[in-house]
Amino acid sequence: MIVCKFGGTSVASAEQIKKVAAIVKDEPKRKAVVVSAPGKRFGDDIKVTDLLIALAHASLRNQDAENELKAVVDRYEDIAQGLGLDDTIVNVIEQDLRGRLQENRDNPPLFMDQLKASGEDNNAKLIAAYFTSIGLDAEYVNPKEAGLVVSDEPGRARALPEAYENLSKLRENGKIVVFPGFFGYTKEGVMMTFARGGSDITGSILAASLKAELYENFTDVDSVFAANPNVVDNPAEIKRMTYREMRELSYAGFSVFHDEALMPAFQHSVPVCIKNTNNPSAPGTMIVAEREYTKSPVIGIAADAGFSALYVSKYLMNRELGFGRRLLQILEEEEVSYEHIPSGIDDLSVIVRSHQLTAEKEERILERCREELHVDNAHIEHGFAMIVLVGEGMHNTLGLSARATAAISRVGANIEMINQGSSEVSLVFGIQEKDTDNVLRELYEEFFSKSAVLQ
Amino acid sequence: MIVCKFGGTSVASAEQIKKVAAIVKDEPKRKAVVVSAPGKRFGDDIKVTDLLIALAHASLRNQDAENELKAVVDRYEDIAQGLGLDDTIVNVIEQDLRGRLQENRDNPPLFMDQLKASGEDNNAKLIAAYFTSIGLDAEYVNPKEAGLVVSDEPGRARALPEAYENLSKLRENGKIVVFPGFFGYTKEGVMMTFARGGSDITGSILAASLKAELYENFTDVDSVFAANPNVVDNPAEIKRMTYREMRELSYAGFSVFHDEALMPAFQHSVPVCIKNTNNPSAPGTMIVAEREYTKSPVIGIAADAGFSALYVSKYLMNRELGFGRRLLQILEEEEVSYEHIPSGIDDLSVIVRSHQLTAEKEERILERCREELHVDNAHIEHGFAMIVLVGEGMHNTLGLSARATAAISRVGANIEMINQGSSEVSLVFGIQEKDTDNVLRELYEEFFSKSAVLQ
Repeated sequence: MIVCKFGGTSVASAEQIKKVAAIVKDEPKRKAVVVSAPGKRFGDDIKVTDLLIALAHASLRNQDAENELKAVVDRYEDIAQGLGLDDTIVNVIEQDLRGRLQENRDNPPLFMDQLKASGEDNNAKLIAAYFTSIGLDAEYVNPKEAGLVVSDEPGRARALPEAYENLSKLRENGKIVVFPGFFGYTKEGVMMTFARGGSDITGSILAASLKAELYENFTDVDSVFAANPNVVDNPAEIKRMTYREMRELSYAGFSVFHDEALMPAFQHSVPVCIKNTNNPSAPGTMIVAEREYTKSPVIGIAADAGFSALYVSKYLMNRELGFGRRLLQILEEEEVSYEHIPSGIDDLSVIVRSHQLTAEKEERILERCREELHVDNAHIEHGFAMIVLVGEGMHNTLGLSARATAAISRVGANIEMINQGSSEVSLVFGIQEKDTDNVLRELYEEFFSKSAVLQ
Repeated sequence: MIVCKFGGTSVASAEQIKKVAAIVKDEPKRKAVVVSAPGKRFGDDIKVTDLLIALAHASLRNQDAENELKAVVDRYEDIAQGLGLDDTIVNVIEQDLRGRLQENRDNPPLFMDQLKASGEDNNAKLIAAYFTSIGLDAEYVNPKEAGLVVSDEPGRARALPEAYENLSKLRENGKIVVFPGFFGYTKEGVMMTFARGGSDITGSILAASLKAELYENFTDVDSVFAANPNVVDNPAEIKRMTYREMRELSYAGFSVFHDEALMPAFQHSVPVCIKNTNNPSAPGTMIVAEREYTKSPVIGIAADAGFSALYVSKYLMNRELGFGRRLLQILEEEEVSYEHIPSGIDDLSVIVRSHQLTAEKEERILERCREELHVDNAHIEHGFAMIVLVGEGMHNTLGLSARATAAISRVGANIEMINQGSSEVSLVFGIQEKDTDNVLRELYEEFFSKSAVLQ
């Protein structure tokens, strides 16, 4: 069986939901459908989730929230009408929302979460109703009843092991299961939402639980590109990549969905396919545990700005057992996580994401380096970008770093950092932010355009 | 004033000591002379230090050690005769040795150290006597009387701050001070020896204490070479390098003397010159705090084998604050120090010197990675070499890593690791051990032979 998940734009309107139904109908194996709340229909549209947030705020301020409520109900009504459904489902949704507004508001974040999660929940009810109306044997399934048990961590809940056991019983359901994304319930029955990319997480959990042969993640792009299309013209589409490659690419804001969401699928070895609701015949991008790699070692190039470097130097540093560990401990205590730690003999630098730093925090870190580590020198520099070449098999490709460094030199960019040697699937260069786009384009040229000609 | 230190081969025979005297005579600023024990005069010769170790062992076994004692005294007698000195000094030395043999032997290592240190001590007395005999206004100075106070760490003593204060008074001595290397005394008056390169350490401490304008370290080579002359034919001589460059080069067994020895000179900003006793007119290699760097960014290339890599991977590793720190903590607890830590997104590897590992230790480390860090994968590989390009200003040289990586590719060697970004003076490549010599030669060709033609 196949678990498919449809994102906000895929379920934003009657027209989009009809595409979803056609996709589900087209392949009998698609027996579990995870849906988001209705997203934007056009550039300036407001997502249902944002309408729900406005509703919750109004209600928490003890205002009459009828206008805000109506805005939400109208969106569903609009969709229901477009799908040729009568008022029944809209009434169900309105009653659901009025019920949620009567809930205890002693814990405002929980009250807010309850309303936000209604976006997915009610959309699942509506889509199940539509599926049934066109003759699909479908059923809305509530995460609480299905046993999606999660940890008690509001806004970042994680599925507990028993959730997988409970959800696996849905295999015996027979019908097409329409399942709302984004939330689960604690053992005590309290609703908890997932982190960013919540519906992707639900789909991934469901795919793992049901031992699906495939987890299809429908979005609004045909595939993942080999480089950012805003910088590189018509970049190549990635047909097939490994989880590792996906992770390395997502490092630099490359991912079409939140990488943490893939964890359950990865752990249960369910392959993932990223597909386009608006062009379902396109093969999409497959994410698998292993792939064959042939001539072209580089599958994608990601770039991201916003990095800083902490440099410390101390004569005879490399004789000091525990120096690096103590430096990392200081950063950990300051809640700064690091990306890379290039090291010389008496020098060490730590590359971190700049957003973690403040002027006070920097001063404190430098002061602690001087006081506790007795460094000769410590300073922090900003304005770096990281460029990551990604590809299985890259590690054993002779001359690859020579080609990459030559390309970077050609555009006159200085290489501030090179990190190669741990991951077999990536090669990271630190450069000045200002050089990012030029370097990305030249590397793309080197590894994609040229390769295409040479091979 | 200049402090000069003469190593074992420079004071191994009357002939050599005459060269030393000529060097000291030649430059009136040379007012402090630190000497080692007489070293080897020819390939199969036995150093006085080794004769003394044999003497100590014999004496500790309660044997009649007259033969061993005679072997030592004969060496000094031979030197004294060659220098035209009468028996006085040889008698002084013999009495000194007989006195040391009567010392308390409850602590055999200390008894051993006492005898070993006599090698430097008696040679200083002999050389002072010779200097005086040829009209130099010289004086043997005893480290205890001069106040070379050290920490109570047998075999790895460190000078205490008051030592610098005490020794600074030797400036007022007026005479040429002949000072034995290798040892000092605790506050309680117990003799303690320094670590490897002990006479170099004494020279460095003395140079720092006396605020010398220069610390000359006389050995038996004209200068430091830009690459290992056993691998590269006629490598360039390094005229001038910074402490940082010297440290980076010494990382890979490059140093003509023990790098820790330079610490006091470095901290007190005393420039160091490595010179040849047998060719004192050669300018030698200057080691300074800063140097101008011009066209050629690479000053030297070092290579060393015997490295291993610990690889660990874990899905979503980079989201885990403290992961790297905990891995380093495990290594620290296993007393393994690391050289480099290249990192991917979900991978981390730690490059260590292989000699620190045993099969049991490796198994324990891997087990702890699995148990405590819950890694998906952990393994250790052996047989790597590190090649280090060293040079101030290298960091800002466009295209340098491109040239280096291209050179490595030309000889068909795979680059296992690249570490650039912390030190401004080095670029480190990890390669397979078998490729070491080929890579070193090709890099030398690239940065020295070619440069010479191109510039």
